This record gives sequence, C-alpha cells and structure tokens, in this order.
Amino acid sequence: MAGSSFGRLLTLSTFGESHGPAVGGVLDGVPPGIPLVEVDIQRELDRRRPGQSSVTTERAEPDTVEILSGVFEGRTMGTPVAFLIRNSSARSSDYESIKDVFRPGHADWTYFAKYGVRDWRGGGRSSGRETAARVAAGAVAKAILSRRGIAVLGYTVEIAGVRARAFDPAEIERNPVRSPDAGKAAVMIQKIEEAKKAGDSVGGVAEVRVSGCPAGLGEPVFDKLEALLAHAIMSIGAARSVEVGAGIEAARMRGSQFNDELAMDSGRVTTRTNNAGGIAGGISTGSDIIVRAAFRPPASISLPQASVNVRGDPVTVEVMGRHDPCIVPRAVPVMEAMTALVIADCLLMQDARGGTGGHGGTPDPRGR
Amino acid sequence: MAGSSFGRLLTLSTFGESHGPAVGGVLDGVPPGIPLVEVDIQRELDRRRPGQSSVTTERAEPDTVEILSGVFEGRTMGTPVAFLIRNSSARSSDYESIKDVFRPGHADWTYFAKYGVRDWRGGGRSSGRETAARVAAGAVAKAILSRRGIAVLGYTVEIAGVRARAFDPAEIERNPVRSPDAGKAAVMIQKIEEAKKAGDSVGGVAEVRVSGCPAGLGEPVFDKLEALLAHAIMSIGAARSVEVGAGIEAARMRGSQFNDELAMDSGRVTTRTNNAGGIAGGISTGSDIIVRAAFRPPASISLPQASVNVRGDPVTVEVMGRHDPCIVPRAVPVMEAMTALVIADCLLMQDARGGTGGHGGTPDPRGR
Amino acid sequence: MAGSSFGRLLTLSTFGESHGPAVGGVLDGVPPGIPLVEVDIQRELDRRRPGQSSVTTERAEPDTVEILSGVFEGRTMGTPVAFLIRNSSARSSDYESIKDVFRPGHADWTYFAKYGVRDWRGGGRSSGRETAARVAAGAVAKAILSRRGIAVLGYTVEIAGVRARAFDPAEIERNPVRSPDAGKAAVMIQKIEEAKKAGDSVGGVAEVRVSGCPAGLGEPVFDKLEALLAHAIMSIGAARSVEVGAGIEAARMRGSQFNDELAMDSGRVTTRTNNAGGIAGGISTGSDIIVRAAFRPPASISLPQASVNVRGDPVTVEVMGRHDPCIVPRAVPVMEAMTALVIADCLLMQDARGGTGGHGGTPDPRGR
Amino acid sequence: MAGSSFGRLLTLSTFGESHGPAVGGVLDGVPPGIPLVEVDIQRELDRRRPGQSSVTTERAEPDTVEILSGVFEGRTMGTPVAFLIRNSSARSSDYESIKDVFRPGHADWTYFAKYGVRDWRGGGRSSGRETAARVAAGAVAKAILSRRGIAVLGYTVEIAGVRARAFDPAEIERNPVRSPDAGKAAVMIQKIEEAKKAGDSVGGVAEVRVSGCPAGLGEPVFDKLEALLAHAIMSIGAARSVEVGAGIEAARMRGSQFNDELAMDSGRVTTRTNNAGGIAGGISTGSDIIVRAAFRPPASISLPQASVNVRGDPVTVEVMGRHDPCIVPRAVPVMEAMTALVIADCLLMQDARGGTGGHGGTPDPRGR
Repeated sequence: MAGSSFGRLLTLSTFGESHGPAVGGVLDGVPPGIPLVEVDIQRELDRRRPGQSSVTTERAEPDTVEILSGVFEGRTMGTPVAFLIRNSSARSSDYESIKDVFRPGHADWTYFAKYGVRDWRGGGRSSGRETAARVAAGAVAKAILSRRGIAVLGYTVEIAGVRARAFDPAEIERNPVRSPDAGKAAVMIQKIEEAKKAGDSVGGVAEVRVSGCPAGLGEPVFDKLEALLAHAIMSIGAARSVEVGAGIEAARMRGSQFNDELAMDSGRVTTRTNNAGGIAGGISTGSDIIVRAAFRPPASISLPQASVNVRGDPVTVEVMGRHDPCIVPRAVPVMEAMTALVIADCLLMQDARGGTGGHGGTPDPRGR
Repeated sequence: MAGSSFGRLLTLSTFGESHGPAVGGVLDGVPPGIPLVEVDIQRELDRRRPGQSSVTTERAEPDTVEILSGVFEGRTMGTPVAFLIRNSSARSSDYESIKDVFRPGHADWTYFAKYGVRDWRGGGRSSGRETAARVAAGAVAKAILSRRGIAVLGYTVEIAGVRARAFDPAEIERNPVRSPDAGKAAVMIQKIEEAKKAGDSVGGVAEVRVSGCPAGLGEPVFDKLEALLAHAIMSIGAARSVEVGAGIEAARMRGSQFNDELAMDSGRVTTRTNNAGGIAGGISTGSDIIVRAAFRPPASISLPQASVNVRGDPVTVEVMGRHDPCIVPRAVPVMEAMTALVIADCLLMQDARGGTGGHGGTPDPRGR
Repeated sequence: MAGSSFGRLLTLSTFGESHGPAVGGVLDGVPPGIPLVEVDIQRELDRRRPGQSSVTTERAEPDTVEILSGVFEGRTMGTPVAFLIRNSSARSSDYESIKDVFRPGHADWTYFAKYGVRDWRGGGRSSGRETAARVAAGAVAKAILSRRGIAVLGYTVEIAGVRARAFDPAEIERNPVRSPDAGKAAVMIQKIEEAKKAGDSVGGVAEVRVSGCPAGLGEPVFDKLEALLAHAIMSIGAARSVEVGAGIEAARMRGSQFNDELAMDSGRVTTRTNNAGGIAGGISTGSDIIVRAAFRPPASISLPQASVNVRGDPVTVEVMGRHDPCIVPRAVPVMEAMTALVIADCLLMQDARGGTGGHGGTPDPRGR
Repeated sequence: MAGSSFGRLLTLSTFGESHGPAVGGVLDGVPPGIPLVEVDIQRELDRRRPGQSSVTTERAEPDTVEILSGVFEGRTMGTPVAFLIRNSSARSSDYESIKDVFRPGHADWTYFAKYGVRDWRGGGRSSGRETAARVAAGAVAKAILSRRGIAVLGYTVEIAGVRARAFDPAEIERNPVRSPDAGKAAVMIQKIEEAKKAGDSVGGVAEVRVSGCPAGLGEPVFDKLEALLAHAIMSIGAARSVEVGAGIEAARMRGSQFNDELAMDSGRVTTRTNNAGGIAGGISTGSDIIVRAAFRPPASISLPQASVNVRGDPVTVEVMGRHDPCIVPRAVPVMEAMTALVIADCLLMQDARGGTGGHGGTPDPRGR
C-alpha cells in the first residue's frame, strides 16, 4: 500500500536504497513446481547491470543475486520467493559535495517534501537501482510464462531521435543499445557518445512484445490489461509515456482504419491487423500484445544547472560521478520484467476463473 | 480485485451493464464533513451525458443520480457514498440483429473468450456507459479536493488531427468539443460531422491539468503519481496512450533541456519549466500536474466490416444504432474524474504520513 | 480499504445506513455461469429479517432485494453482482429523544470520536442493519459453493447459558432460535422472553459447519483459513469470540489428545477426530470446517443506564423502540454468509493455483 | 494476496522456510523519522528465541537480525524497512526418517494437498519459525506506537489448566512462562515439565493489553478493530480462539451487565467497566484494548501416533528432535507483535482521516 508492492495474485514487494546494504524483494504467489535456479535470475540481472558497455554508466556492480526462500530442490514450492542483491559499489563519498543540494530532474526535492528527511547518498530509494529487484522478480515471472508458452521480448525503437526501421530479433542482444536494427544501432551509439562527451544525456523509446498469450487475460473496467501495463511501465522512473498498439497514432485514425477486423485462422479467432496491440475492451485478443514507452534523458548531467539547496539558497549544480548517458538500453530488461509480472498475474487471475481452456481461442457454437 | 474497484484509501467500486437495470458505484473512504448534495454529482454527469450536442450520440439518457448512503444533512459522514443511475434508454432491440456477431473493435470476442458467456445487449459491462459511475465518484473526489484548494481541469487538445493552439480556459465548456481554442473548435466539429456523414468515426487527444496540488503526493517505486494516473486514465475504454508533462517528446530532448531547474518563489521551491508535468521521482513537485491521453476513434461505425460470429462463420457487420462519432468531448469529464480520484487518494495517503504541512513547499533549514 | 470491503478474489463492498434510503452491496469476482435469481437471495434475507418471530424485534422490514447488475438470463456473467434493499421502516422519530446522547454499549461515542459527526438516526452505519447486505452476498457465495458440492450450515448452540445437547439438523429452521435441539429450544425461548419482559437482553453462542470442502483451501502465514474466518465473523457487530474446532478447550488438552490422527478412507486422507475443526496449518484438511462465535447481549435495553451526552453532561438513558432481546437467531444466517464468502474466496484463490483436483484428497505416490 | 502480507498502510510481507537459508520480511509504510536501531529489534527477537529456558525447545538459534533498508543515521526514512534473520541451526537430518510421513497435527498433509510438493525439512513455511519475522516487524510497530504514548503488553493467563490469579506486570518477564502471577508460574512450569517427561505437550491462554490508545481507531463493518485483531492473532499457527474483553463470557451476561456505562473523567469520555475490551462498534473507546487467545498443545510429541505416508500407507509416527512442550511463553511476544502491527496500522488509517486530535477524547459541544 505504501508503494513498494505490485500485483494481485503474484505480488512483488521490494526494498532497498541505492547506497544502503542491499536491494531485494519478495515475490509471493509463485505457483509451485516451477523450475528455478539462481542463474535464471542472474542472467536477467546481467542484462540490466551497470557497466556492461560503453553506453552505460561505468559504475561496476556485480549484482549477484541470492535466493533466500521459496525454492527447494530446484523448484518453487508455492511459498514466497525472496531474493537479495548486496550493494557493493556504493561510494557515498561521490555525493558529499551535493549533500545539501536538490538536483534538478531528480527526486531530491520531492522526497524531502514528502518525508521531511534527506537521504543524500545518491538517490536512495528513488534511485534506478531499485529496478534490479524488479528484474529479479521478472525472471521468475518469465519462468511462469515460459511453461505456458508465453514469451516477452523487449527492444529499443528509438534513441536521440534515431528510429529503428528493420526488425531482426536476433540482432537485439548483439548490440549495446538493444536495437533490432543493426545499422541504426550504430547511429544511436554515436548519438549517445556525443551527448556523453558534451556532459549531457539523451532519451528514447523502447517496446515490448508478448507472444503466445491466450485470449481472455485482463479484467474489465479498472484493471484492463492496458491499464495494468501502463501502471507497471509508467512506474519505471524515467518513463514519460505509455502506449499500446497504434498508441498515440490512433488519435489520427478513422474507425474504419483502426478497427481490427476478425477472421478465423486454424479454428481460432484472430485479428487481421493489430492496431489494438492485442487488447480489446481491456482483455487480451490472442494476438501479440504490444506496449511502448518513451524514456526521458537521464537527470544526472555534468553541465551546470540552477537549483536551490535545503536552506532555500540558489545554487549551481554540476552532477559529477558515473552516470548513464542514456537509460533506454538498460530500461529494456526492466520493461520486460514489469510486463512479465503483469501478464503472469493476469494469467493466475484468469486461472481463478476456470482458465481460458474452454473458450480461449475457439468460438463455441452453443454459447453456454 | 476482479477489476471493478479502484483506489487505496479512497476506493471506488462500480457495477452495471449498459442494458441492465442500472449503473452505479460505492465510494468508500470519503472523509467526513464534506458538503455534498446530489446536484454536485448531477452537474458532472450532465457533462458526460449522451445527447448533449450534435457531435455526440443522439441516444438521450437523463442519467439522473440518486445518492443512497453516506450523506446526512448535506454533509458526508465518513461512511461509503453509494449512488445509483437507472438505465432508461436501453433499447436492447437495437442489438437483436447482431446478437451472434463479434463486432470489430469491440470487446464482444474478448469477453466471450474470458467469460464464456455472451451479453449481446450493446456492450454490457464493456460499454462506455460504466464511466457514468466514474464521473459520479469523481464529483465527490472534486469536492474533497476543492476543500484543499485543488482544481482539476480537462479539455480537448486535438481531434481528427486538428490541434488547439490557443488556450482560453473560459472557452472550454462553451463549445461542444471542449476545446480551449474557439477557432479550432469549429474545425474539429466540422471534421467530426464529415466522419459521421461517412458512417465513420474519429479520434483525438485530451489533457487534464491539476492546479493547487501540494508537493509530496505519490509514493515511491510502484505507486508513483504518474503510474497511478496512467493506470486510471488507461482504464478508460478508448484511451490508447498516456503521457505526463513533455511526454513522448521527452524521448527527443537532451537532459539539459528536459531537467526543470529549481528556484525559490515567495518562500516556496518551484520549477522554472514544467517538462516533468509536476511530478519528479513519482512525487508531486507543487507545480501543475499535466497528463494527456490519446483516444481512438469509436469502434461503432456503420461502414461494412469483416468479422466472425459465435459459431466461427465469417460475417459482414454494419453497426447501426446511435453512436458517438468522436468520444473525446465526452471523455474529458471522465478523464477529469479519474484524475480527481487519484489525486484525492494520494492526498489521503500523504495525510496518513503526517501531511505536507511542515515540508510541503518550504525548504527546512534544519533538515530534521 | 476504509472498511466496507471484504474478500480478495470475491470482493464484497457494502453501503448504507440504518435510516438512510437503502442498504446494499456490490459483489465482484463472481464466476460466470452460476444460476442466480432474486429469490435465491430473498430466501436468505427472510431468514435474517426482523419481525420473523416473537424472539426478534417487532420492527417489520420487508427487506425486498433488487439485483441491479451481473445477472442476465438467469445466470451470472462474471461482472459485479450489485443488489439493493430499500429501508422502509426507518422511523427516525424513535431517536429524537436520544439525539444528543451516547448510548452505552453502542457505537455512538466511538463513531463520534472517529468521524466528528453524529448520525443520531438509530446507529447509522454501525447498525446491525448493514448485515442484510452481507446475507445477500452470502446467498451468491452459497450458489458458487453449491456447484462444487460445498454446504454451509449454521445453528445456535447456546442462549442465556442454555446449551443444545442434541443435534438434529432438520430441527434448526423449525424453531425460532435455530437450535438443533428442539427441547432446549423451548427453554432458550423462555429465557429470552423473561429477559425481554425485564427490559433486558441475553447473549449466546452460534456455530457454523462447512461440509464437502476439499483439502487445500486457505493460505499460509497471515491468510490462514481460520484467520480469514476469524476476521469475517468477528466483524459481525455483536461477536465477542471466535473459535475453530476444539477452540478454547484446546488450551486444556495435551498434544496426544488434541492431534487428529490421519487415516485413509476410500482412497482419501482423512482425520479420525476433528479437534482441528477441519484446518491444519491454516489449510483445510477435507474434514468439516467448524467455527463458533459468542454473541453478546444486544446493547439496546430499556433499563436505565448512566451515560454522557455530546456536551459531556451526565445523563440517564432508557432505550425505547423495537429491539432484539437476543441477536443469536438472526446472527446465524449472517455467520453463514460470512463463512460462505470466505470459503468461496479461498476456493477461487486455490483455483488460481491449479485447483485441488490433482492432490486434493488423495496422496500421490510420485510426489510431483 | 497469497497470504504472506498483512496490513493496509503498514504492510508486512514475510518470507522464509524453517530449513532454508533465512527468514525475514519487508515492512512498508513506516513513517519517516522514527528512531530505530538493530538492537530494538534484537531485544524482541531474544524474547521469542528458542532455547531461552527449560520450558522451551532446546534448539539454539541465535536469531541475529540485520536491517537491510529503510533506516539511515538511526532513523527510519519512510521507505520499506527490510530485515533478515539467517537460519543457523537447521538440522534437516532430524527429518530424514519422517521424510515421507504426514505428521498428525502438522500441516504436512494439508500443504501437500494445497501445493502438490513436499518440503520435508521440518515444517518449511508452516513452521513457527516464520513468526521471527513477525516479531521483528512488531518491534518496528512498537517504536511507532511508543512515540504516540501507546504500549502493548502481553502475558500468559493460563497453562495446562492452571490460571494466573494475581496480576503483577513487573513479574511477567521474570519467570520463563511470562505469567503475571509468580506463584502460579511455578505450578505452570511444573505442569510443562511433567508433560515433557511424558513425551507430550500442553496448551494455554495468553492475553495482550494495549494502553494509551486514543478513541477512534478501527473501521466500520469489515475492518472493525476486533476483526483485524482476530485475523492477526488467529494467524499465529497454534491459536485456536480469539476473544476481546469479556469474550466468551459475554454470551452468558445480560445487556444490563455487559454494557459499559459512560462517564466523564478529566474532561474525557470513559467507560466505567471494560467488558467491551476497549472497542465499541468496531472502534476503540479510549479504554485499554484487551485481547485473549487460546493456544493448543504443540503438535510435535514423541508418543506414538497413527498416520499415513505420502503413498497412503498407514504408519506410526514418533516425532523426535527438539520441540517446545508448551508454546504459550514464546507465543506472547508474537501476539504482542501482531497486536502492535494492527494498532499502528489503524493509527495511520485514522491519521489519513485527519486524526483523532479534535474529537478523540473530548465531547464537542457544537458537534461539527
């Protein structure tokens, strides 16, 4: 309730400040019998890890995960899966010089306004470091989905105004920006390095595609599938917009263009186009779910900016230290994780209703 | 939990199908002592009501609200405020001809996939009619906010590709499209009427601005203010994107452009620009909160579309009956209502933490 | 969150004050396809209705229910089932004389302390009248359970110190105190009438038995089945204790007496005794679930009592009007309703985990 | 939602199996600025720790706590407080011989029925060991309450049929059974040792008293204060009954005896008696809150018992190893912890409503 928990039947509670002893989480509601070992989680954490390439922060955190509960003899038990990631590269001294300063674009001022206390050690709870716990939990969610034939794939579609045009899934993890377009990846990298050299940062857009998802997931009214996804993804610090399917372009389409016509394909209902992004009336259609988010340029830049300190005096801030010049490549696994958590939760919710077995892909001549 | 409830301390539970006896809701957590009479709710319902102008559906529902509980002698009591809106213009016969058909762009197929039952009476629970209950609850939320000096204002920024350029708040409720730009309003209306004549529909973009909101609202991590707003607004049936502040444009900005510099103004911390849309690190800054959503063109069009029926046979559908050629003008009060519910809920959450009185606008020379 | 909702996957939200326009509720999460008509609910309401016999209040409320949503063509649709019960016998004038007085044993003072407002019309939200909404929702829960072969049976085991000894289920609804022991029923009735004549009231104990419940319901740790039942039943206004199985007597037993030995019966694991009341480690065993509650004597008595008024002056109160001299007979259907809501909710929770089909009654030679 | 979380504004999520790497928890919603150091938690854990006296299990766990987050410079920050307790004395080998056996009175069978998997290492998640996390969280809740002048005191009132008669608070922590009656403590100890020698176990009753609690805590209807307490306390593994105030005795009283008359005391409303246990209509009265629970004799006894194994074969079980002959003395700090969590949560809920400042103890001549 105080903001560190997410999900209904599959509930993640996270903890940890960027410069405290550790970050971690508890994932409750994991079904029993799912194969799970630490390396499944570690692999995802390594995709989010700082210091993985020239376009991410140089800070090197090993981000080694330890599973504390919920797994026995290589399988989940149905009890909460807790995991711990120790903070090892927490140089609080980097922040001594800006101890009293509210950094522009950061949560320094708003956290102070909210709590009346000041954790000056580099973001504290508001740091992107908390997303490590999301990625760990997302790895467990992916294991749940994998058993049901559902896959979650994220990639970068735009950085610094450069858009990917080609879509080669095999390319995504081969370049440091996670672009499905190898050619554009090179241009994106160049743009990031230019900004970095200038002491500045750049933004971009990432997309996640869920394939193999049955029709029937999501709830009417407030917990529409797109609403849960929007909540999940907009809760990633740097996200500034969320779209599903045609997204903002839908505003410029006519109904006759936007509506996805229905057809039969191998005995299953399917849509001829997918402007809806795999969701109609808040419920999955069985087509790929497509969600997209814009990420702002990181707030930490070394150019001088005007601000105030905790006493209300005007100051000039230059944020030194090791920072990401562009967050999009590292946001991709986080966005995948949040999407996987939502889809797995919706799957369990629908199971509680008898599942989609009977009706989840075939029309029923008798109705019920 | 099954999707018909929203909010944490201020919780709305709604019910009702478009062609059943009634729609309505229960709003729990309303603080005691708030002045409230039925006309406060009726006024907002009248803004959402069908049949209010030439650019909305011709279906005429009086949408008369009855307060069933929670109010005594003109004030709230702290107990749940329940309200009821009878359905009076429910011509199920309009739907007889498409009883077995899944309409493209509607939730007919996905609801069938989810529940295995078919409510063929015009959308049932998935109908936009359920938003009447949201608007009624939003009126109560506005009454809560009003006592704290917080105002919520919605308007149309784009329809059928026509963007408002001027911003005159007084203009908004004077034209049927709720545009703050009177000149562009005329063009928008023309575009809607053209589409209507062609048996088609158009989309658009609406925006909500919250003024007077103290710094400190919203929770870290999963319940960031923008995440709650995204959830709330993306749960409105036709919404396809949600943005805060600079939104998707943030993806194309550099950090030095995007970051809002901080300054003092009359003893309070303020931002010089508002690219963040009044939210930093998930917590309100004290500047205006700005949220924007794209709405797709309505699914009900009278042009022929390919689809399938419940037996899986291919069919051609032409949706007759009385429908909105553009939903944006009527979505504005719904978007306001959802925003008001989120802000009021966050306000109560922050009150539970001692409120923003001590720190909600002034730096504190002593820290704590 | 503000106390008027209950349940996780099957969520009841209620509303209404005793002397407002109506009481009612919204039950979300009802599975689709359950046969349900108004008379199923009305039958249960009639069991709770005031004025049904000489041992209940003489106030006559018809308590006619109207289903507002969630049901179409005689079956549930998976959408919220809302129901409304108009208040018809609300004589506020009965309360004019005690408008400013805090009645001993009632919530007058505590509601005033909590909300700072005074609904002097006979209890308002704290009135037992709100339990009508629980009974209505419980009828829907019973319909869900009935399809799975689960039955919920309540009865009175003690009134005014007189304990039932015999147990004849057929007898329960034949006598006005709902005692399974016809002989003791007569004595109980006599004790109630004596107290009533003296302007006083008496307490008692009721029990509910759930049969046909599969093993595996309930969650570990905080949502143990007995914890959910205790929450549900202790939330009935007059309940002062809750026990499961041997209950308080367990405190005086040795482990060798209390432990229920396990045995096989027709291929299913069963317990030879049932001191645990059908629950071990918070999870149902497959044996009958047995829960018991003590109800205090009703607070409204016509004997003079010392109290204070809203100004803090000492006063003497004699509560006139039509009141129950003993609440136990009418509490039985309420206790059944709350139990049915908990069991149905746990059943859906377990369905979300794959159900109890594979393991819910037979040991598995292979483990998994 | 899957049972490992508790609380609304102050939410505890726990994890850990008895023989896994660790147990621990995350407490979200802790207000900022509360003084907190590890020793505050360690002190409470030491009261629950096994091996503390001759009447508890001989198993010696140091139960050393580590705070992982939420505290900086000796004060809470408003972010989640996470804590970790490593399992050190986990001799799984003790359980090898009963690996395939369902122990009577334990959750072995029901967990198998629920999850279809078998954690044979001494109870796993169903072990009383998980209560260490509750006690740690309870220590934080006590720190919150302490700042508001609220104290939570637990003690043993009965063991093996021997009831405490005297009440000397100073005596409680001086004897190993936590009895406020030194004389009866000696008899209780003797009874426990007799049972232990016989390879058997005994039950008892514990009580918790909350003093300094303002009027106005608790919510109407489903989240009545006594309902939340019943939920909290009945979720402790061995609890079989929960009572408030006069409890089960209320069933045998008349209204004129049970009702607590109101009076003024130093300008505050107070009750002359406290049969209601400090709660009327689900809301605290301002008098001491009194809650009591019966605990069954521990299930692990070394006497032979009939049971079945995972293959459904009849077996005889004798549970060897180190076990508690009576759980009541160690249940006292757990019951205190659960009570403190409920009261602190209700306090925050009421703060969200403006607090009890204006009306929480004094009648108001003007109403509002």
